[in-house]
Amino acid sequence: MRDAQQIIETAHEMADAARAAILPLFRNADLIADNKRAAGFDPVTEADRAGETAMRAVLARRRPQDAILGEEFGLSDGDSGLTWILDPIDGTRAFLCGAPSWGVLIGLGDGHGIRYGLIDQPYTRERFEGGLGRAQLTGPGGRRRLAVRRDALLADATLMTTFPEIGTPAEANAFRRVADRVRLTRYGLDCYAYALLALGHVDLVIEAGLQPYDIAGPLAVVEAAGGIVTDWQGGPAAQGGQVIAAATASLHREALAYLNG
Amino acid sequence: MRDAQQIIETAHEMADAARAAILPLFRNADLIADNKRAAGFDPVTEADRAGETAMRAVLARRRPQDAILGEEFGLSDGDSGLTWILDPIDGTRAFLCGAPSWGVLIGLGDGHGIRYGLIDQPYTRERFEGGLGRAQLTGPGGRRRLAVRRDALLADATLMTTFPEIGTPAEANAFRRVADRVRLTRYGLDCYAYALLALGHVDLVIEAGLQPYDIAGPLAVVEAAGGIVTDWQGGPAAQGGQVIAAATASLHREALAYLNG
Repeated sequence: MRDAQQIIETAHEMADAARAAILPLFRNADLIADNKRAAGFDPVTEADRAGETAMRAVLARRRPQDAILGEEFGLSDGDSGLTWILDPIDGTRAFLCGAPSWGVLIGLGDGHGIRYGLIDQPYTRERFEGGLGRAQLTGPGGRRRLAVRRDALLADATLMTTFPEIGTPAEANAFRRVADRVRLTRYGLDCYAYALLALGHVDLVIEAGLQPYDIAGPLAVVEAAGGIVTDWQGGPAAQGGQVIAAATASLHREALAYLNG
Repeated sequence: MRDAQQIIETAHEMADAARAAILPLFRNADLIADNKRAAGFDPVTEADRAGETAMRAVLARRRPQDAILGEEFGLSDGDSGLTWILDPIDGTRAFLCGAPSWGVLIGLGDGHGIRYGLIDQPYTRERFEGGLGRAQLTGPGGRRRLAVRRDALLADATLMTTFPEIGTPAEANAFRRVADRVRLTRYGLDCYAYALLALGHVDLVIEAGLQPYDIAGPLAVVEAAGGIVTDWQGGPAAQGGQVIAAATASLHREALAYLNG
């Protein structure tokens, strides 16, 4: 892709700006208490808006020609053929609980698919990125290459999802059919589950009811690490809805069969 | 308590030693792959043993007169009337998944109850401690006083537990009766859930099937932050089993009524 280096630099600058905007609102009990009487004040909504505003300001300066689809402020047109897909806080419930499993999600689509993305956890200072030749975690422990685990069978696999309820009752039943075959099912990690899959510690992530901005960043990270991300029918996942991410083709095939069986 | 300062210093030295022993084994895919063919090698068990060995070495040097109850190596007698209660890795499933919600747990009991304890998360470098006049989080963000949230009603409360299955079917039903009355239920955080309660971000933690070493450290942290920890009948929780931790007396009373109703 033309401008790959500049695109990557822009994404990191956006993630830095979102961190700076959001972190002061995380675990800030004083702020919540101070503002409780102000009608309608919601620290997560404030943090969401502040994060997206900060990222849009970076794009306005560095790449005004690109379109933007953001969770908070919707679609802004562009004429470059590229669209930045932004979720300033994926995992608002985790954010509310003080748990550092929420993330800032950034994806870049070109009309054919997602070409680059990142998952940033501001509190732990971990940034997972994938695409345009990169597949890495950077954080307090240094830099580490992302690569999925290659050898797990379904019976040995670790499966993650955010809520045990998943989505509709039918979706929950489909999930259960997979969960009944794996070794370990864990809940509650939001976008961080995809990061752990890209790190090689989780083998499957299955979710339903996603929005495009929930999956664009994670999709790029997981694919760059060698994983597979599709919808539950095996088609493109970039539109959200029912999504499965798998470490290997055989796990993906087996899990799809149970989801649809 | 006599020697309070020396006890606190000893606990921190133990937690430092456990961090140093355990962290090299966390997210170490190479090590897992290298040792797969070695019969019976289990990185979590190795890390658990290394962590407890490191903590026992500190006690042997600094406080040989105290008894020790550890998850890995059981009971060692002492004649001081004090017992250190150790869980080198609480949340082994989280550890296996690469999620930083496991913790090193240290508690100190004197025969009447738990007097001091800490929850240490080595990867995020967060240490929550309570008792002997302390109630604080220390970490990369500095020092922060621990205090539970005082104003949540049951209908607004956030409830945490580790597994949706909780324990027996009867225990799961009891949990469900509480979960049906709260605003938000979240899963999967192990000991980190008690830390978030002590930070004022979570209002209730309800678990079953705990061992004494699962609850000694968290109990001291939550009580020092102003919370209440008992069994599901309202009695002492230090022996484990069915445990409830609540931010306030009224939440505790209401939740107990639903657990037993």
